[in-house]
Parts: sequence; C-alpha cells; structure tokens
Amino acid sequence: MVRVVVLSGGVGGSRLVEGLAAIGGKQLTVLVNTADDTDYYGLHVSPDLDTNLYVLAGIVNPQRGWGVMDERWTVEEQLKRLGEHPWFHVGDRDLATHLIRTAALHAGHFLSEVTADLCRRLGVESRLIPMTDDPVQTFLLCEGEWLPFQEYFVHRQAAPLVRAVAYRGSEHARPVEAALRALEAADLIVFAPSNPYTSLLPILAVSGYREVIRNKLVFAVSPLIGGQAVKGSLAAMLGSLAGEVSLRALFDLYGDIVDGWLVDPVDMEEARASFEGVVACEPLLLTTHADRVRVAQRLLQLANPLKEREDRG
Amino acid sequence: MVRVVVLSGGVGGSRLVEGLAAIGGKQLTVLVNTADDTDYYGLHVSPDLDTNLYVLAGIVNPQRGWGVMDERWTVEEQLKRLGEHPWFHVGDRDLATHLIRTAALHAGHFLSEVTADLCRRLGVESRLIPMTDDPVQTFLLCEGEWLPFQEYFVHRQAAPLVRAVAYRGSEHARPVEAALRALEAADLIVFAPSNPYTSLLPILAVSGYREVIRNKLVFAVSPLIGGQAVKGSLAAMLGSLAGEVSLRALFDLYGDIVDGWLVDPVDMEEARASFEGVVACEPLLLTTHADRVRVAQRLLQLANPLKEREDRG
Repeated sequence: MVRVVVLSGGVGGSRLVEGLAAIGGKQLTVLVNTADDTDYYGLHVSPDLDTNLYVLAGIVNPQRGWGVMDERWTVEEQLKRLGEHPWFHVGDRDLATHLIRTAALHAGHFLSEVTADLCRRLGVESRLIPMTDDPVQTFLLCEGEWLPFQEYFVHRQAAPLVRAVAYRGSEHARPVEAALRALEAADLIVFAPSNPYTSLLPILAVSGYREVIRNKLVFAVSPLIGGQAVKGSLAAMLGSLAGEVSLRALFDLYGDIVDGWLVDPVDMEEARASFEGVVACEPLLLTTHADRVRVAQRLLQLANPLKEREDRG
Repeated sequence: MVRVVVLSGGVGGSRLVEGLAAIGGKQLTVLVNTADDTDYYGLHVSPDLDTNLYVLAGIVNPQRGWGVMDERWTVEEQLKRLGEHPWFHVGDRDLATHLIRTAALHAGHFLSEVTADLCRRLGVESRLIPMTDDPVQTFLLCEGEWLPFQEYFVHRQAAPLVRAVAYRGSEHARPVEAALRALEAADLIVFAPSNPYTSLLPILAVSGYREVIRNKLVFAVSPLIGGQAVKGSLAAMLGSLAGEVSLRALFDLYGDIVDGWLVDPVDMEEARASFEGVVACEPLLLTTHADRVRVAQRLLQLANPLKEREDRG
C-alpha cells in the first residue's frame, strides 16, 4: 500500500481526492486549505474542509460538487423573508455541520479535532486535516481594495482583476502535528489540481510543511487544460499576478519542490519545454467518478518507479 | 388610547399578548423575560422573545404556540444523522432568527437593538423589549443539582422537584432604558399569565423595574385555574417552593405591587378571600384568538375606572 498525502482546496482538488480515496482510502491523508474559512452569522464555515469531507463521506452534492446531496434551503429562504440578502449559500444540511463545528470550537476544541470528529461521525476512512488550527485568511487586492476570499470568489464571482494575494495570519500559523507526521511518512505527496494562489500556496505558507515536502516525492496535477482553468479564476490570476498564462508560470508557483507534473495531453509539449523534471500526461477533465479514479491510478503508477528509484538510491 | 406594558414569558404569556396586540398594538409594549436564553451550537436563542415576536408578527405556529408556522426540520434531522441528540428543538425557519440575532450580537449590537430590528423586519407595530441586555440565567435546584432553565424545562420536561430558584447575573443586570420609559408612561401594566418563578420574577429581579412598577396601576392575570397551571409546572413549583398550591401563595409572589387580579370564575371565591385589592373574574382558558381578545378587553375595562380614580386622586 502506498501512503499518500494530497494537498487540496475546494471542488477542483476534491475531485482528485475522490479518485485517490477510491483506490486506497485508509492510506490517504487529505491536507486542506483553511484560508477560505469564513464567518456565517456567527458560525465557523470551512468550505474546503467540508467539500473534501462530503466527498470522502460520499454525500457531496454531485451536481454542484460542494455541499450535501438532497439539500434543502429553508433557512436561507427564511433569511431572505427576514430581509437578508445572503450571497454565501449554506443549505440546511450543510448548516448542521457548521453548528457542530462551531459548538466544538466554542467548547475549546481545535479545528483539527473537530474535523477528525466529523470524519468519525460520517464514517470517513481517510484522514482529513486542516492546514492549521490558527486563523489564516486569504485576501486579494482588487481595484485598490483588499477583499477576503469569499467576498472576491462568491460575492463578486471572481470577476475583479487580482493585483496581489496575501495570506494574513500565516506568519503566526502553526502546522498541525498529525499533518507533519503524515507528510513525513508519505510515499507520495500529491498537489491536487486546485488554484495554487487560493488553495495550495496558503498551505505551503504555514511554516514547517514546505521543509518536509521538499524532501519527499511530490507529484502535481495541473489545474490548467489548454491554458484554461477547468474551474475558477486561475487563468486570470496567472495573467495579472505572474504576467502570463502559461504552464511555466504555473510550474514556477511551486518551484522545485515538485518532482513531476501530470498534465493534459494537449499541454504535453508545452509542459516538457517548461519543466526539467518528470512530465506525464493523462486526460485531466475529472467529470466522472471513473475519470477521477483513472487519474489517481495514473499518479500512483507514475510515482511507483520514482519511489523505487528513491528507495534504491 | 391606553398605553399598556405587559410583562410576559413564553407561550402562556404570549397568548394574552396576542389579545392585547389585537386591541391596540401600537400602544403596546411587551417586556420579556430573557433568563431562559440559551446557547444552541454557538447561536444565541431567546425563546421567550421569539415566542412573543412570532405572536406579534402573526407567524407563530398555531398548534405549538411557539416557533414559526410552516416550519421544517431539515437541520435537526441532519444533526441527528451526524450523531447528535438535540433535545432543544429549533426548526429551520426559527434558526434564521437565531442566525440574524447572533451575527448582530457578535457585531456589538445590544439584544434590545437586535430585537427592535427583528420587529421592524417582521412588520411588528408593538414594542418588544428584552428585560435586560446583560446575561441573566434562571437556575433551578433539583435533587441537589442546579439546572439551567432549558435543561430543567425542556430536557427533563419539568419533572424534577424544584427546591430553589436563582436568577444568576440579575444582581449586575441593568434594565433597558426604553422599557423603563415605557413603564413610566404606561396607563396600565399587565402581568401576563406566565409562571412567576421562571418568567416574571426574573424581570422584576432586574434593578429599576420594580421601583417604577410599584407606583403604577398593575393588573395580573392568574396562571392558575382551579389550582392547576394551564401550562407548565407552576403548581408543582408552588407546592415545593411556597409550601402550598393556592391563590394566596401565587398572589404573595408579586406582593403588594399588584393592584388587581383577574382570575377564572372557578377561583373567584378563593381569590376574594386571599387578596385585599381588586379581584375580577373571566374565563381564562386562552384557547382561541377570540378568548385572548376577550380577556385583553376585560383587562382594559377593569383598568379604566381604576385609572380614572387614580387620575382624579
């Protein structure tokens, strides 16, 4: 069995997590961005943790890719009747998760403990770990104004041009001990096809992780296909923040801690020209469960000989 | 127009509030117990405020007498799926109120401001005022253990024998300025047929109210009919706390600040023998809207000549 740690953000990353969990859920650790966490009427919402939690529990809403299946919206409907204009959408079932999390945090538990508890309640075999128990918030500089991530991504629908990104609080954030141990023990570390700026770089900004990851076998799955992000605003952000929308600009974001990139066949040529390490290709549109399992299997196949070489070396 | 301030607790008191509001909602102020307020997974729930709010807004659930009509229970259902055993029941629509309240309190607003805001949102003409913006909690000594009110009333279904009652925090609680002004300006103050121990005495324990009320015309509506509480555990509490279940024991709880009692016809004889002030009777089962309006009208009729006598005197 291969011990895998995957770094994941929201919907995009969670699709690969689904595939990895289907192959070897018990050996899988999912280390998740929490810099998008937000306050919803006093409740602590962890959108990326929940997306991955619901995927691992097999209860994610299949159409949207986030939230719970068979969801209802009576609370939001009533909020509107009371004159609210909620732009951050929380379904009734999803709300139950936030209630349990908030009560546990108020009672003094850490987010990582609450997350492990939610996994137990939902029968999740994999380990799901928030990047930190400390507050970190992604802010994006748009039109001269620093916006919190959800304000940019959900309220303004990722439309404004992003001039800078900051992970406020990350300078004081401590890594989660269980995550450090899982990274140290991992045979393979996977960077899921999430937006680096808003999902994986916040994780790497927490002190400690980068140092452990640097010495391990790391495979990244490209979030770009033919110069376009499958989901979200990565292409626009590369253009405004890195100066060009290219695989080289993407690869540079993680630097030399990545040993191999898995890209879509349409990007194979550009990838080979842009990266000195291992490059492999596989169709990366993760539309169906079969797609997700296929890409996860390809990653493990790619990692095996490299791992063996490392073990021999 | 008669300016009325009614002191009210939960379902029992709110039935009279419904009648008073139907007669003269704009001239009505409802001063409500908050010593039953509770934390629900990090949300601030004010059960008595909400019962009176929903009654005044015409959206109370008519079967239960509390909560919102056309209620749904998806959040609670999901909490159970996640392994919770909630005994304090909050419907989906009701939850929206708690979300708005909690967010406003977190933002630094006072409970009295939030309550006024909720009234505006629901088009309520009457003024609804919490007894204090400070934390006060009713505790009941049962079998050697101090229980918070909701634990006693909802979780243990008011079954344990109550040996003592305490309103923790009331020694530091300040009255709400708008409530003091309404009491000072009132032509009539009504004590709704709520349980004195758990609903109205907590209000009177907040410094300032008793002093103003003492100089005003006060009518109380009996929460007992034929020695039985219409709702809840008053009879049992009178037995264990006052030593006897009688109108005299009930009347003694408010002492001499009450000018007149409105009792059920079955209690008229005992009431006359137990109270030196004005005693009148009217059937007090407030089952229908018509019952509630009838009793409210009777109160105003009773108050008028007394008020005129006071004005002349």
